[in-house]
Amino acid sequence: MLAAIEAGGTKFVCAVGDETGRIVDRIKIPTTIPEETMTEVIKFFKKYTVKSIGIGSFGPIDINEDSPAYGHITSTPKLAWKDYPIVETMKKAFGVPVGFNTDVNAAALGEATFGAAKGLDSCLYITVGTGIGAGAIVQGQLLQGLSHPEMGHILVRRHPNDSYEGNCPYHGDCLEGMAAGPAIENRWGLKGAELSEREEVWDLEGYYLAQAIMQYSLILSPKKIILGGGVSNQKQVFEAIHKYLPEFIQNYISLPELSSYIVKPGLGDDSGISGALMLASRALENN
Amino acid sequence: MLAAIEAGGTKFVCAVGDETGRIVDRIKIPTTIPEETMTEVIKFFKKYTVKSIGIGSFGPIDINEDSPAYGHITSTPKLAWKDYPIVETMKKAFGVPVGFNTDVNAAALGEATFGAAKGLDSCLYITVGTGIGAGAIVQGQLLQGLSHPEMGHILVRRHPNDSYEGNCPYHGDCLEGMAAGPAIENRWGLKGAELSEREEVWDLEGYYLAQAIMQYSLILSPKKIILGGGVSNQKQVFEAIHKYLPEFIQNYISLPELSSYIVKPGLGDDSGISGALMLASRALENN
Repeated sequence: MLAAIEAGGTKFVCAVGDETGRIVDRIKIPTTIPEETMTEVIKFFKKYTVKSIGIGSFGPIDINEDSPAYGHITSTPKLAWKDYPIVETMKKAFGVPVGFNTDVNAAALGEATFGAAKGLDSCLYITVGTGIGAGAIVQGQLLQGLSHPEMGHILVRRHPNDSYEGNCPYHGDCLEGMAAGPAIENRWGLKGAELSEREEVWDLEGYYLAQAIMQYSLILSPKKIILGGGVSNQKQVFEAIHKYLPEFIQNYISLPELSSYIVKPGLGDDSGISGALMLASRALENN
Repeated sequence: MLAAIEAGGTKFVCAVGDETGRIVDRIKIPTTIPEETMTEVIKFFKKYTVKSIGIGSFGPIDINEDSPAYGHITSTPKLAWKDYPIVETMKKAFGVPVGFNTDVNAAALGEATFGAAKGLDSCLYITVGTGIGAGAIVQGQLLQGLSHPEMGHILVRRHPNDSYEGNCPYHGDCLEGMAAGPAIENRWGLKGAELSEREEVWDLEGYYLAQAIMQYSLILSPKKIILGGGVSNQKQVFEAIHKYLPEFIQNYISLPELSSYIVKPGLGDDSGISGALMLASRALENN
């Protein structure tokens, strides 16, 4: 069996399955403190003969195999998990190869293998929720270098009618500071789910996301863009992105028809856990 | 022998050499019309027994091997070269494998193999001259997907004291429209080379390039950034980038010491031709 963990800030999804993406058992475990959460995680997997483990994790994390902190969750505001060596914990418990990457890179891998980008060697997975993150597959490889990307914090140009100052503690009005769920709530005074009929909310959201997609497309040139997270449940966001993206790009690059190019996850909520299964599969191959 | 072509808008550099980067002969040929230029190119290489050919080309080009226009220079404003099938021309003349990519991706490959990023599996090569372009190596692979990146046209935020409108025919005040050589000349009324003592020129240039580097770093996380092209000869540009980049990033990601992270090309003017040699070497391997 391959073991997969989607390690999130509120819950861990654990699953066992195989390299075809088939999941045979799964469990959700609340993210409390490592001693509690990881004990439950290990207990779940101990029911199976685990050949390798894949972890797609919230971050920031250290994915540089030459670094002494490789396999750690690093400077997270969730203090109990700061500097937590999650890879080492799983290796000690199971003695098998462990693949480790960000939750969004795992989701991109899941979508490229089994989902909306199935069969493509390149895609971008963006999630817009409590924060904004993105992962990508480039020529079949997970996008990483010095570290993992932090695409949610790119700079955007403010909409001329938007006076919201932005709430990113680092950058104020970067993409995440202007367009993540908490920014929507702060700006409009209601949670996103309560604003679903307010066209102007999603039009503005699309304005910022279209700018981000322009930057991502010019820099990465992905073959498919998958937009997940809570905000992607608002279909008006896609309409607004389709409207603004051509205004920004001005036909400088030619993109496929936008409604088939920028899409919802093909795997629904399972992009991340399916990708973690593939991280396990790759870890086994590379061993 | 491996054959390498750096196809530029004003000249073609052709070289023969080997996979260690050694160049044994080279020639420069003016870029006029394909019938003239390519005749000279072929004549040069016919002196040797060519095993494979690598081409790093000005663009836009079609590098999608599934496309009917693969191997063409596509919508260039140099009309004689529009839709020119450069790969097919070389294949017909020599009957050997041909590797084909952008000039900047080739330069990134050259720097990652023999230059400032030697030994690294990831780097970003930016050139700032008549235009702005960038290429990258990600996990040892050339960065490409739907097409090649067009990083020079990302959006930047205008400096509050800069009233120059920008001269990109597509986007006005995108990065290239604000910071390429012609924008510098338009804004200040003199060519860059004549402005070398004007601190404010290079400070503003660094402001825009630092923003671009922030976006590239957050999206690609390269292990090394190489800044080439005419503008990189102004050392004040590096100083300004070192000043502004931390202001933009605000310690959100940790970067290496900037003077060793953002550097001039290790190969001087040979990044592109050396990379084209490696494109030839890879084409031979993949055959």
